[in-house]
Amino acid sequence: MAKVIAMYKRPVDPAAFDRYYYATHVPIAKKIPGLRHYEVTSGPVTTLDGPSPYHLVALLSFDSLAAIQAALGTPEGQATAADLGNFATGGVDLYIADTRTI
Amino acid sequence: MAKVIAMYKRPVDPAAFDRYYYATHVPIAKKIPGLRHYEVTSGPVTTLDGPSPYHLVALLSFDSLAAIQAALGTPEGQATAADLGNFATGGVDLYIADTRTI
Repeated sequence: MAKVIAMYKRPVDPAAFDRYYYATHVPIAKKIPGLRHYEVTSGPVTTLDGPSPYHLVALLSFDSLAAIQAALGTPEGQATAADLGNFATGGVDLYIADTRTI
Repeated sequence: MAKVIAMYKRPVDPAAFDRYYYATHVPIAKKIPGLRHYEVTSGPVTTLDGPSPYHLVALLSFDSLAAIQAALGTPEGQATAADLGNFATGGVDLYIADTRTI
């Protein structure tokens, strides 16, 4: 398996972010070909001691890194990336890696 | 569900980190009471364009945030936290959040 880890920093308006994310962004992202599992944090993302700079973390699972690369090149992948600018007002850190259960 | 997201920054000696992580740290961490699933990145953690500051990301799943808080207070949880200083030479960012599949 492989994952896209999308780490959204605290947005200007968290309530507006949440509304847009679930009503608009998630339906767009769920159309990405090859997406096997989509998991998000709910409620605050904290450190062990207190607040973190992140508002939400999304974990999108695919069969492989190659599947992610292919998915990003599709119209659905490009639409998902293009939509980030519509709500990720705090910025988003995107990471990609192979993953395995140990 | 809830997750601990452990993001290890590039260590001084990545090969030594990997040896210690899999031979010593993982067996310690797997003893944490309530740990339901343990997933790690394998190979590089990149951004969409190239290298990232992270060497490895571990996702440790528990039933709830309360289960994580309880686990961190056990001897096994404290041993896992104490072991970080033995190999995480680049530092580690630890995040905690409730998670759900969407």
